[in-house]
Amino acid sequence: MIMDDKKRTEISQLGEFGLIDKLTADFKNGNAHTKLGVGDDAAVIDAGRGLLLLSTDLLLEGIDFDLTYFPLKHLGFKAVVVAISDILAMNGTPEQLTLSIGVSAKFGVEDLQQLYDGVRVACEEYGVDLVGGDTSASVTGLTLSMTAVGRVEKRRVAYRSGAKLNDLICITGDLGAAYMGLHLLEREKRAFEGHANPQPKFEGYEYLLRRQLKPVARLDIIEALRAADIVPTSMIDLSDGLASDLLQICKSSKCGARIYLNRLPISRETYALAEELHADPVVAALNGGADYELLFTVPLAMQEQVMALGGIDVIGHITAESTGAMLVTPDGSDIALTAPGFK
Amino acid sequence: MIMDDKKRTEISQLGEFGLIDKLTADFKNGNAHTKLGVGDDAAVIDAGRGLLLLSTDLLLEGIDFDLTYFPLKHLGFKAVVVAISDILAMNGTPEQLTLSIGVSAKFGVEDLQQLYDGVRVACEEYGVDLVGGDTSASVTGLTLSMTAVGRVEKRRVAYRSGAKLNDLICITGDLGAAYMGLHLLEREKRAFEGHANPQPKFEGYEYLLRRQLKPVARLDIIEALRAADIVPTSMIDLSDGLASDLLQICKSSKCGARIYLNRLPISRETYALAEELHADPVVAALNGGADYELLFTVPLAMQEQVMALGGIDVIGHITAESTGAMLVTPDGSDIALTAPGFK
Repeated sequence: MIMDDKKRTEISQLGEFGLIDKLTADFKNGNAHTKLGVGDDAAVIDAGRGLLLLSTDLLLEGIDFDLTYFPLKHLGFKAVVVAISDILAMNGTPEQLTLSIGVSAKFGVEDLQQLYDGVRVACEEYGVDLVGGDTSASVTGLTLSMTAVGRVEKRRVAYRSGAKLNDLICITGDLGAAYMGLHLLEREKRAFEGHANPQPKFEGYEYLLRRQLKPVARLDIIEALRAADIVPTSMIDLSDGLASDLLQICKSSKCGARIYLNRLPISRETYALAEELHADPVVAALNGGADYELLFTVPLAMQEQVMALGGIDVIGHITAESTGAMLVTPDGSDIALTAPGFK
Repeated sequence: MIMDDKKRTEISQLGEFGLIDKLTADFKNGNAHTKLGVGDDAAVIDAGRGLLLLSTDLLLEGIDFDLTYFPLKHLGFKAVVVAISDILAMNGTPEQLTLSIGVSAKFGVEDLQQLYDGVRVACEEYGVDLVGGDTSASVTGLTLSMTAVGRVEKRRVAYRSGAKLNDLICITGDLGAAYMGLHLLEREKRAFEGHANPQPKFEGYEYLLRRQLKPVARLDIIEALRAADIVPTSMIDLSDGLASDLLQICKSSKCGARIYLNRLPISRETYALAEELHADPVVAALNGGADYELLFTVPLAMQEQVMALGGIDVIGHITAESTGAMLVTPDGSDIALTAPGFK
């Protein structure tokens, strides 16, 4: 029936976000407990004294991961990080997780055990309970679908929509390393294709591999913010890349932004590999994605308190919507931020 | 890395349930709000005055549906039914839903719009809010992953584990029709393969097609049970087939069961097509699955109250664990119920 349609719009014409907007435009939320549906990192459900957070992610073999170089145990760990990162991005504490898997005949029980070992290690590390899932045969590759549930006090929830004029734009960790790690793995895969006993060269770039193969969910930051009683005015996790994710904040908060190129946190290893590959480390930082760091805004008056937490950089500030989202280069020129479309 | 392992156990050796048991054996739940994890229709989370229910399902093209004859709008509707049926099976009211999709290049926006139209119609029919999802490209077929959230009063939750000796085994609707509908669609697909303009013959079997292509979630039964203040001692939805699902109740409740062949509700159309195809309608009823009816137990004293609701059949009763789960034929002989393994 797919070919019967007279009109056909390519998904790439809309982009991922445009597609979701279009597909969900006619849906109306009617349950009293539903506080927020599609459009933020997680859905928000009233749960008596607090708010319940719900978020779901899909990881598909051949698109989101390549088992040639991605060990199954690491994949299991990463699946948990990807899922709970959205709960953290609402300033919440992840508590439960469901994992559904579609598996083809090439996988044995021992393979899946490795995958679940990684899931278990991550669940233990982040204090999350695996509470359900579905298992299906698959005619093709491995499919992972995760749903994370978390909680947050009503007064502490951080939406994408709360950024205010002059708020500081803060970022945790560093950017672009996961993306450079992926490039390194892809390069070594190509170099050793067909070799029976590949000996890939990763010396000096272990940090980049770790960022790609074992990303960290920033539960520590959420706990530090809570301990310091700091509530971000807006927050998002860096899964699509700084440019795309900051544009989401601007769109939801109806504001602009100015971020400064020389304040972007980029690791030494990211610079080094970018140089070796003749790539631009700033592009990796802006568009690389999969860092799973947090991007958030706080009122200007909180600068000292936030900096005192450590591991957080202020990279710019919120401006009026009319000025757009700009990257300011060291020579003082403005470059409008743009985001790649559907991946 | 998949081939490196010395030991390899085929998934089919464990079966789906055995696989899940094995993979999740070492997971420990630590959150105070987690009341029940893996092992029932839905996870149970404390939500202040009530309980929150969480359930997830995966539908994969080529395994769970065939787009040759499954219209996308119907698939969207069915995805919602599959997801919320697990919430109903805990005696809960479904409230929220997330839907993630993996889509390959063969799908245009209009195709996905059809899918979401079906999702929307079902969400409206059952009063469920679509609150999130993830969209990914796919190198192969269509992947759907749904997570449903619902609520239930603490005193009304129905686990699989609560069936007691002499409880009545009740069933809603009829069994095996969805399975016979699938057989009919597969037969017509084979008959018309390669035809430019197929004219499949479905006359007289519209009911079977509807049961396969547009299944019903029994929210009406849950509401009727609540109105009559009847709380089932145990409940499960009929997704895998009566035999498999009743065995789940027996396993969780540590009990046996006796059900009577001549009390199984089987539709006239199911009998008719089974005869035409030289198939056994009882096998369709026991092992067909995908009926999305409810199987539940109530104390013997409630028989009159339950029968007064209408549309419910009592097919047998709960026995001691040592007697096993038996199907009693009209001539009085017992046949032990068995369930097919991993699908």
